[in-house]
Amino acid sequence: MENLLRGLLACVREDLDAVERELERAVRLPDPSLTETSRHLLAAGGKRMRPAFCLLAARFTPCPPQRVVPLAAALELIHMASLVHDDVVDEARIRRGRPTVRARWGNRVSTHIGDYLFAQSLVLISSYGEPLVQRVLADTSVKMCQGEIHQIAGVFAVEQNLKDYLGRINRKTALLIAASCQLGGVVSGAEPRVWRRLRCFGRFLGMAFQIVDDILDFVADQGEVGKPVGSDLAQGILTLPSIRALACSPQKERLGVLLEERLAGEGDLREAVDLIKDCGAIEYSFGVAERYVAKAKEHLAGLPEGEAKAVLRRLADFVTVRRF
Amino acid sequence: MENLLRGLLACVREDLDAVERELERAVRLPDPSLTETSRHLLAAGGKRMRPAFCLLAARFTPCPPQRVVPLAAALELIHMASLVHDDVVDEARIRRGRPTVRARWGNRVSTHIGDYLFAQSLVLISSYGEPLVQRVLADTSVKMCQGEIHQIAGVFAVEQNLKDYLGRINRKTALLIAASCQLGGVVSGAEPRVWRRLRCFGRFLGMAFQIVDDILDFVADQGEVGKPVGSDLAQGILTLPSIRALACSPQKERLGVLLEERLAGEGDLREAVDLIKDCGAIEYSFGVAERYVAKAKEHLAGLPEGEAKAVLRRLADFVTVRRF
Repeated sequence: MENLLRGLLACVREDLDAVERELERAVRLPDPSLTETSRHLLAAGGKRMRPAFCLLAARFTPCPPQRVVPLAAALELIHMASLVHDDVVDEARIRRGRPTVRARWGNRVSTHIGDYLFAQSLVLISSYGEPLVQRVLADTSVKMCQGEIHQIAGVFAVEQNLKDYLGRINRKTALLIAASCQLGGVVSGAEPRVWRRLRCFGRFLGMAFQIVDDILDFVADQGEVGKPVGSDLAQGILTLPSIRALACSPQKERLGVLLEERLAGEGDLREAVDLIKDCGAIEYSFGVAERYVAKAKEHLAGLPEGEAKAVLRRLADFVTVRRF
Repeated sequence: MENLLRGLLACVREDLDAVERELERAVRLPDPSLTETSRHLLAAGGKRMRPAFCLLAARFTPCPPQRVVPLAAALELIHMASLVHDDVVDEARIRRGRPTVRARWGNRVSTHIGDYLFAQSLVLISSYGEPLVQRVLADTSVKMCQGEIHQIAGVFAVEQNLKDYLGRINRKTALLIAASCQLGGVVSGAEPRVWRRLRCFGRFLGMAFQIVDDILDFVADQGEVGKPVGSDLAQGILTLPSIRALACSPQKERLGVLLEERLAGEGDLREAVDLIKDCGAIEYSFGVAERYVAKAKEHLAGLPEGEAKAVLRRLADFVTVRRF
């Protein structure tokens, strides 16, 4: 699966390597005792999807790669900062199969390292003259925090509905992917009609991406995803499969009771996960993700043909087949 | 003492009120359950020194106040965000006499609310076209995090010297005050030779400001400062008086032992505070602060005469006489 993704991104491999070098520089921490933390942050790194989207989006207009690389790195730093801060608050011990920064060094270090990564992204962003870059990323950052705060406020809230969920993942995830696509276009000098389409593509694909992430929390095995099954639910975070099951499972009352009692009993988490999986909520959620992928592709259709478009189309398909 | 400050700032009172309205808007949180938190953040607000410096620095060049108010509010939001995150990590229960956000709502909410305040500052900052505004604030944010990380790395490190301390408070405090003065000048359209002097003034005054803060942690009573005496030391944060005492107290070996054992014994904190106060370290520290104030005033001297300059000079004097 990882090889499939590598193959898809071969055409931007060189630029992604340049992004990686930029990240290594930005993640270098100001105290020698933290060198290991830096290495850990990079190694725990994700799939670098946001830089990849940004670099591909910039390929619709001829422009030198060094124009886009700092932005692509900044987008990944914003994402990394949000993951580090997520660890502070969610009491998560494992992310992508490695102990988190917090589990290793505690909340104090995590909070400041998250801030540091975010501040480093601002240094990279401040090199761009286009006011739209600053504006879109400021707005996206505010909304990402709103999404996180909503998620905390909604812990074990069984009354939340599809709309609440979609609004939350839009803010938490989709808007940063939308910004990655849009701004890749903007800094490469694309016309507004091009970067507007790129933004829509990114937003819909981002929605699908998060829905699949939320599904994988139920169905993937720990080895592949790096987190124990049902870890969101264990923390009271209700995602699409849970919300669907609470509405449509023949045993929805029982599921509601388990969640309202915060899965406090021995075996409650296991029972809730089984109830959710048994009622077709996973298949339903995949269907929703696929509809978002289809919408994303509609926006892609209006863009000029070429390698970038072909790769973005295949990345869109990858989102629903991925298992990590 | 608070009335003295109010009087000093009378000439920018109207603009400070506009800043307060901007802050109220920015601090409005995205969930009704958090309205109380917002109110709490504003009420726990400090002396609004950074907005005041920024507004005064803008008065050397004629410009409409609405040009400066968003920047002044952004500077205070950056400061507020750092205080909220400081609470996450320092296990501080009290700040300015009120329970902290963390003590009331926990680490999870604090981390995201700090991020939210910081992100709101970016929205305000993104309205400025001058690349210098973005660049200076990005750079300042990185260095503030470095200062915080150094502070964590230096907990109970008795071998640190004056240079370590000065480097740390420069990053933690002085650079944001320097940026407040500099950028007030920049956005009002001042010439580089004016805003360069304003920046130097702010940096030296910021150093003095933090040194006095660190002294007040030893000598002020809890009612005025809102924190128990010796609270920095209790957390292992060695500031100028401690560092001076470790170098010059006749009982420096005893103090070193107490700190290396992390003040673990009953009465150790009290004993350490007394050793520090008894060896003249407080008076020495005041002397250092006064030298920084004098340096700040030297830079002020080169600026055009007028009300702004007179008020900044009196603010500089206020820094070493304040008791809160």
